Amino acid sequence: MLKGHQTWVYPAKPVIISTGTVGGPQEARGPLAEDFDLLHGDLWLGQDTYEKAEKKMLEEACEITLQKAGLQKKDLQFFLCGDLMNQVISSSFAARTLAVPFLGLYGACSTSMESLALGALIVNSGYGDRVLCGTASHNAAAEKQYRYPTEYGSQKPPTAQWTVTGAGAALLAPGGDGPVVTSATIGRVVDMGMSDPFNMGGAMAPAAVDTITAHLRDMQASPRDYDLIATGDLGEVGFRIASDLLKKHGLEIPGELFTDCGLVIYGEEHPEVLSGGSGCGCAATVVYGHILNRMKKGELKKVLIVATGALLSPLSYQQKETIPCIAHAVSIEYGG
Amino acid sequence: MLKGHQTWVYPAKPVIISTGTVGGPQEARGPLAEDFDLLHGDLWLGQDTYEKAEKKMLEEACEITLQKAGLQKKDLQFFLCGDLMNQVISSSFAARTLAVPFLGLYGACSTSMESLALGALIVNSGYGDRVLCGTASHNAAAEKQYRYPTEYGSQKPPTAQWTVTGAGAALLAPGGDGPVVTSATIGRVVDMGMSDPFNMGGAMAPAAVDTITAHLRDMQASPRDYDLIATGDLGEVGFRIASDLLKKHGLEIPGELFTDCGLVIYGEEHPEVLSGGSGCGCAATVVYGHILNRMKKGELKKVLIVATGALLSPLSYQQKETIPCIAHAVSIEYGG
Repeated sequence: MLKGHQTWVYPAKPVIISTGTVGGPQEARGPLAEDFDLLHGDLWLGQDTYEKAEKKMLEEACEITLQKAGLQKKDLQFFLCGDLMNQVISSSFAARTLAVPFLGLYGACSTSMESLALGALIVNSGYGDRVLCGTASHNAAAEKQYRYPTEYGSQKPPTAQWTVTGAGAALLAPGGDGPVVTSATIGRVVDMGMSDPFNMGGAMAPAAVDTITAHLRDMQASPRDYDLIATGDLGEVGFRIASDLLKKHGLEIPGELFTDCGLVIYGEEHPEVLSGGSGCGCAATVVYGHILNRMKKGELKKVLIVATGALLSPLSYQQKETIPCIAHAVSIEYGG
Repeated sequence: MLKGHQTWVYPAKPVIISTGTVGGPQEARGPLAEDFDLLHGDLWLGQDTYEKAEKKMLEEACEITLQKAGLQKKDLQFFLCGDLMNQVISSSFAARTLAVPFLGLYGACSTSMESLALGALIVNSGYGDRVLCGTASHNAAAEKQYRYPTEYGSQKPPTAQWTVTGAGAALLAPGGDGPVVTSATIGRVVDMGMSDPFNMGGAMAPAAVDTITAHLRDMQASPRDYDLIATGDLGEVGFRIASDLLKKHGLEIPGELFTDCGLVIYGEEHPEVLSGGSGCGCAATVVYGHILNRMKKGELKKVLIVATGALLSPLSYQQKETIPCIAHAVSIEYGG
């Protein structure tokens, strides 16, 4: 049911019975490599375009998820998916391969938690009992679409982020073994007037703060109720801004509880990622791989994932628009 | 609950308590002009780009919907919206204006019924009681993005369609006066190998047939159970193909019950629209204006809206991909 203004509580506790994560070469070099189900040594995946490689990666994440659950495509009821490509083609083409009822989503890099929140709503309400939620991004496909082809070697400022080459999927069911989805806070669009697409973390930080604040208010909870609160892809700059803003709101999250998927995916040894990871695949692979693995090991019992999205387009930027941002938060629990 | 393979039934019967429809100059010249709440004499709406005009139109449709319901932005809980623009910017920017929790969707021209189906699920399950569903398209913005700027005067084949300049919104609530949403069938992606973006009606027809067949199977219903079955934007060519395919499947829909929003919006006096209307705004404005008005006049009691979407992008076309298509069907009832 709806709790407070914008939070959905799932009393039936839909279970994430299986997940699949796929990454590219940069992700393979990062500290979370072992948490991926599949890593690719190059960006092409045997395809002739980066866009087709992104689609293939998404299909692989879905296939791995099904395999791990011992299920086949025909056992699925609904597929909820979105990505960064114009007209979300990676998702639509993956949906064609899966051949199951499909709901296309667009939440930029917040898509992972948008799909998980809607998927949990479907399962919780008895409208489906095998719901696959997924998303993907591809560094070279995103660079080409949003900025310049990487071959140009354009310089970037240190606030810029590195789009994750990765796909993540999660399969929700009404029962079974696995972490459960307990609530979700649907974010509002927040726009603080920033217009620099090379500082999306900074633009998205206020949206993350808005949603975290809303979640804690609606659930009458405090940060200490969670073992981990992870934003999606704020990167170093955005994460610092979000931390400062939360402090200003009197909602300081203790450092040991607060992290960002865009920071942990590449660690501190890779200055080439500048401010950190970003892209739909960032939160998806870190959560469905690394964080859920930590939950299964008993290191974390209750986490809040706050996936952030910058809802701009190259065209809106060219037309001098600022960057509307959003964040959707999902609470996941395991054990305890 | 889930009925059959892919149909959601809404026992609580969420009510469409208000709608808003806005159109452009071509729509004002068509036979349904009187069914629009607001018509614009030019494509610009006082904006300096077509994309901003599309966003404004969508904002107007939302505002009108709220006004007619005697509500304000702050009374809304969730906004579900999508459009054809890259990164669904019209919806995201309208969501910024509304400042309510937002779920971005992408279903190409099927978005109207995708949002209505999900909105009805939210209301039916007690996860929201003021949910606004919307979508929009703009002829010149779509031509520019998908084909050539209209100023080029490019010739088109007779199978091509005319993107509707229009925005439609519907407000769902658990009670109140108005037509009710009784069920929805979520479509699968169907791709019969067509790759001609100037014949999207033909490409989408099999998806419409797949969803109509699934709906009737899941609901154990026959076409005669409806007073009207309306596809979204197949146009003349696609509608004829869909009719033929249904006949082949032994599911002939009597001619007087079967129509297409892309055919009725411009009528037969406008050869310049070639095969008929298309775009997200097509089904949205025809259904939320004309068809619901007919229901309110008592002419129709039960309708099935089958909004069709072609999930291609200019890039997928350039990369020689075929056109994946989808259709989502929603059943709406009013009175006796």
